[in-house]
Amino acid sequence: MAGKGVTLLGYWGSPYTLRVRWALKLKGVDYEYVEEDLPNKSALLLKYNPAHKKIPVLVHEGKPLAESLVIIEYIDEVWKNNPLLSQDPYGRAEARFWAKFADEKCGPAIMRTFVAKEDEKENVAREARENLKILESYLAEKPFFGGETIGFVDIVAGWIGIWARIVEEIVDANLMDAGNTPLLNAWFDNFLELPAIKECVPPIDQLLEHNKSFHKSLTATST
Amino acid sequence: MAGKGVTLLGYWGSPYTLRVRWALKLKGVDYEYVEEDLPNKSALLLKYNPAHKKIPVLVHEGKPLAESLVIIEYIDEVWKNNPLLSQDPYGRAEARFWAKFADEKCGPAIMRTFVAKEDEKENVAREARENLKILESYLAEKPFFGGETIGFVDIVAGWIGIWARIVEEIVDANLMDAGNTPLLNAWFDNFLELPAIKECVPPIDQLLEHNKSFHKSLTATST
Repeated sequence: MAGKGVTLLGYWGSPYTLRVRWALKLKGVDYEYVEEDLPNKSALLLKYNPAHKKIPVLVHEGKPLAESLVIIEYIDEVWKNNPLLSQDPYGRAEARFWAKFADEKCGPAIMRTFVAKEDEKENVAREARENLKILESYLAEKPFFGGETIGFVDIVAGWIGIWARIVEEIVDANLMDAGNTPLLNAWFDNFLELPAIKECVPPIDQLLEHNKSFHKSLTATST
Repeated sequence: MAGKGVTLLGYWGSPYTLRVRWALKLKGVDYEYVEEDLPNKSALLLKYNPAHKKIPVLVHEGKPLAESLVIIEYIDEVWKNNPLLSQDPYGRAEARFWAKFADEKCGPAIMRTFVAKEDEKENVAREARENLKILESYLAEKPFFGGETIGFVDIVAGWIGIWARIVEEIVDANLMDAGNTPLLNAWFDNFLELPAIKECVPPIDQLLEHNKSFHKSLTATST
């Protein structure tokens, strides 16, 4: 499928950029990728996302879109092959609910674990595990959140499998506990091994080093 | 339009319940309304929204849905009269972006003003005004966010016009500054005067008293 006039402004280490890359890859959309230097945001980014000044931004035929969930729904509506959302309104609503849950409950709890002081770490890590357990309830016994194939929630939640493990390593916390979330852990492994998914993921050692530096800078300023 | 099998679990003082009521009203959907006692949540609420245990929950033909934005999109997809979202993917994406902006930027800044200590109040109120100014940029010169008629963003952001003024009165802050957001202020007035909108709004004096008590309880526990 031709991806004429598609540009993605992103950042290599951003999970929000990654999920948009996954959606474009699954749809077979060709696009120009523009790496943003986050401390020195480009004039293009400031022009295209004045409300937030954040990546990712997708520009399609000159029209900009921000917010990764919004971008992914747009991609799914414009390029109709390999649908990510169900044709059924209730199925779509469920997927939107769980995508929001992953973003608003699981993601922030993992981030809070990353930045937590030592005496708060176990509490926030427990909260993250509890939320991941709830997320697992939607996966249940299905191979993917989307059912037999990858869908919207897989694309949205997939980054957790990478970042949670990086956070676990850097701050020595237990997030992806196989005893707690066996089905979710197995899903992450399967999802991240899919060729279309795997090839978009930045090298894990680079992500690890990048996030170690980030953690060090946070620790240095929080004292 | 028949609203067969539609139940809404809500709370009279909740803006999230109100926006779902507005959507159902605009679509002409009949529904059973169940008022929740929030300190003693019903077994039905816990059953239907185990992930968040929060209102509003819409139950349609036995299937529950939570999260007000998700519910409103579902209502728009199931009852197709008086469409709230555009038929055009870009228009839909824009509406989703601004609904999210209203919920994640404007709403929390108003809430932070409500709970702020005296010496922080002006800073958070300024942040709220700045975000409302950005929201106004999407309204621009249109009568409604949806264009000539009410759409998704009108339904989502409409509560701000009520609650911001209540917060202004209770904590003596300046949020809806007519010099800052003249178009947005005029839109709130026009929107809230529409008969279908007005008749769903709880009595303002009751909302004011309710929020005064709430503010008192917050102030009492924050010392």
